[in-house]
Amino acid sequence: MAAYKMGSGYSVPMTLFRDNRQRSVQAIQQRIAGGLKFDSGNLLVLLEGGKDKSLYNTDVDYVFRQESYFQYLFGVKEPGCYGILTIDVKTGGYKSALFVPRLPEEYGTWMGDLLAPEDFKNMYEVDEVFYVDELNDYLGRAAPKLILTLSGTNSDSGLTLEPPEFDGKEKYVTDCDLLYPVLSECRVIKSPAEIEVLRYVAKVSSDAHIKVMKFMRPGRMEFEGESLFLHHSYSVGGCRHASYTCICGSGTNSSILHYGHAGAPNSKPVQDGELCLFDMGANYCGYAADITCTFPANGKFTADQKFIYNAVLAARNAVMETARDGVSWVDMHKLAGRVLLQQLKDGGMLTGDVEEMLEAGVSGYFQPHGLGHLIGLDVHDVGGYLPTEPKRPSEPWLSKLRFARILKAGMYVTIEPGCYFITYIMDRALANPDIAKYINVDMFNRFRGFGGVRIEDDVLITATGTENFAIVPRTVEEIEATMAST
Amino acid sequence: MAAYKMGSGYSVPMTLFRDNRQRSVQAIQQRIAGGLKFDSGNLLVLLEGGKDKSLYNTDVDYVFRQESYFQYLFGVKEPGCYGILTIDVKTGGYKSALFVPRLPEEYGTWMGDLLAPEDFKNMYEVDEVFYVDELNDYLGRAAPKLILTLSGTNSDSGLTLEPPEFDGKEKYVTDCDLLYPVLSECRVIKSPAEIEVLRYVAKVSSDAHIKVMKFMRPGRMEFEGESLFLHHSYSVGGCRHASYTCICGSGTNSSILHYGHAGAPNSKPVQDGELCLFDMGANYCGYAADITCTFPANGKFTADQKFIYNAVLAARNAVMETARDGVSWVDMHKLAGRVLLQQLKDGGMLTGDVEEMLEAGVSGYFQPHGLGHLIGLDVHDVGGYLPTEPKRPSEPWLSKLRFARILKAGMYVTIEPGCYFITYIMDRALANPDIAKYINVDMFNRFRGFGGVRIEDDVLITATGTENFAIVPRTVEEIEATMAST
Repeated sequence: MAAYKMGSGYSVPMTLFRDNRQRSVQAIQQRIAGGLKFDSGNLLVLLEGGKDKSLYNTDVDYVFRQESYFQYLFGVKEPGCYGILTIDVKTGGYKSALFVPRLPEEYGTWMGDLLAPEDFKNMYEVDEVFYVDELNDYLGRAAPKLILTLSGTNSDSGLTLEPPEFDGKEKYVTDCDLLYPVLSECRVIKSPAEIEVLRYVAKVSSDAHIKVMKFMRPGRMEFEGESLFLHHSYSVGGCRHASYTCICGSGTNSSILHYGHAGAPNSKPVQDGELCLFDMGANYCGYAADITCTFPANGKFTADQKFIYNAVLAARNAVMETARDGVSWVDMHKLAGRVLLQQLKDGGMLTGDVEEMLEAGVSGYFQPHGLGHLIGLDVHDVGGYLPTEPKRPSEPWLSKLRFARILKAGMYVTIEPGCYFITYIMDRALANPDIAKYINVDMFNRFRGFGGVRIEDDVLITATGTENFAIVPRTVEEIEATMAST
Repeated sequence: MAAYKMGSGYSVPMTLFRDNRQRSVQAIQQRIAGGLKFDSGNLLVLLEGGKDKSLYNTDVDYVFRQESYFQYLFGVKEPGCYGILTIDVKTGGYKSALFVPRLPEEYGTWMGDLLAPEDFKNMYEVDEVFYVDELNDYLGRAAPKLILTLSGTNSDSGLTLEPPEFDGKEKYVTDCDLLYPVLSECRVIKSPAEIEVLRYVAKVSSDAHIKVMKFMRPGRMEFEGESLFLHHSYSVGGCRHASYTCICGSGTNSSILHYGHAGAPNSKPVQDGELCLFDMGANYCGYAADITCTFPANGKFTADQKFIYNAVLAARNAVMETARDGVSWVDMHKLAGRVLLQQLKDGGMLTGDVEEMLEAGVSGYFQPHGLGHLIGLDVHDVGGYLPTEPKRPSEPWLSKLRFARILKAGMYVTIEPGCYFITYIMDRALANPDIAKYINVDMFNRFRGFGGVRIEDDVLITATGTENFAIVPRTVEEIEATMAST
């Protein structure tokens, strides 16, 4: 049985992608039954795979990563392909065809023995394989009444995937709007096979986090943690890529949500007494993990660190125990905010009625991001704001939410409450009488430069609750014990 | 003094880039003296820095890497900038201005405290810093008679760097042809400060190679070598990026010149009795290393492996001893070919007159690539086929050369002879009577599946010879001793 496998890493059966195709075809069928005017004739789905990307105009390419929708349907690791599903609308049956680039023999010198269509067919278990230059003829034989192509705007980036260009496109009726929301919704609910890949990549990432936690000490550079994470994920787990740039902030840097970018490249030495907030996730066969651990650089939490850490942990625990199929994600965000505010009040940093503070948006000054996001083939996965789903809330402390849906069994989400002391946001809080009135100013100001805490888990939503795939020390005691062990 | 530094890595003084600017301005002056019609008024050089690149339409960005010409002149690690040199043609004096994106305060949540122009001025030691949205006004005040912008085609990739777009461009006379060859030629001859960075990144890469060589054993996966190389380069050397995708081929894979790409991702277990050919180079502050080591997986060369390895080593040694200022690179390629053929003849694989074989192009069937390439900010560095330099040779066994110039002191090149047994090329050799007549067919065929050997060093050309910055075991004895040590 064909599979994707790196070293002793998880064996991803190609039937996973066949099942994805099957579910997508069913969803398209349902969409047709739901009103698309299409009664007879050939319906084709045509997707373009990702292409190699060069570093500016040099001959250095980024290591190729497949476009996620194409990966979802075909699981193909090579650039420059196309894929077609030919659907029999009457029966719901379909066949899959993969189109691969035809390379001149000389490419063998650089790329190794060139694979024949039959090799690709065996490797990816599609029904047919042709060369890309045969696509036009293929379409001619198929004589489609309609070709569905993929185009849509990502609600996290605002960037648009453009519809594909292909030989002969002008000869056919194409629709580039229908497919994106249908496939996106398919991607939201994870199949049993996908769940096992996600479980694997979360476990690899968890183990790498634990290794980093044990390694980091005052005097180590932040980027040493990034490097060790990537090394463990790759050499042990077979994960060549991280799902996003590693965020390895210490001290004040732990309050910078996307620290680690080129302008702030995890380049500070970690100091005694600081917190480390490390947000790192590996990627396996396209599937993402996204895990954050916060821990004291020297292995022992101070009282202040314990206070903030346990406040965030309480929020996380409350959500973890409450989330399940049928629960509103916005309510979960509110729950996390409510618990955080209560904890901060109990610790003396806030004063006043918690519900009132929540409504006033006080929690947004401590956690200026949403509770979490869908995750899957993309770390911020698609399906957040589909046309049929609740719109992005407008309140400032809710507007950062990456989705506002009712949770369904099979959704896979991060739960990642946090509490940060960010100078300009602290100043804004104190400058706003409607917020400042809840704040114990002396204590609040004592936390300037403290940094932040985030606890981020990767969680499968089930009919009855949650299953957490991030297996890392979470309580203060667990973290201190892990860091004390060798 | 401002510098780029990652951890305990080399401190790259910003004066390196100031000196690059100075040399570039002088070269532009000389170009003017050499015939550019420009006598008075302001001459501006305007470059656009690299921009963030997203992974398809998602909100995941590749870790930003600066465009190499912009890096050469400004050494700026942030995306989205512009740079201007205002040249006083009469005196040769100039001033430098950097333009940085103006980010809304909210970006501080994600990116950390936003830097003011003054911070950038101190960090990069340019004369002035403005926001990008002030570029138009700046140009208005400068009232340039001519703006030189950058556009040109990379002779290795065939890809073109497009001239920059900027506010107000239509108001000025611009020239996008003059600058590219001038700056490219500046980049060819390395300054003393650049040489020290190149020496550093080659040393880091060398140490990482040695670590990998000691680690690899039968049963390890090829990608474990890649992972360890990247980890050492980053965690010890502060090199976040590799200069190109790691090539970690074992067995037959060692004959695939660009093995390691997404379709063949260093995913084979290394077997007893195989050769490993690992071609890997780190990158520091934009500057590249590019080193290849070939070694036996089990630590002991077989007789056949020793034969081929020593043949390549003899070719490498001959070039290393002969190359210097004033020598033709094409002659060095021929020298390597001649020595390789002689060695293969001495070992019984070839028969006939070596000069005759060389002219017939026999060596190209064993080494289907050039002897090496310029290296610097790009791993295949610019300046190979500038208009004023020798054209690419047309003979098949010379046409792969990435440059055909007379060597000059201060050039930095790879010397990387190789010998590979590539099935389709072997078949072509045997099918061509003009080539096959030199081949001992039985012995030749015994090497099917053998893989290949490449020895690649990073070498500074001096007035009297070469200086090799790749400090790795090179003889059979050195390699076996290294692999036997712990």
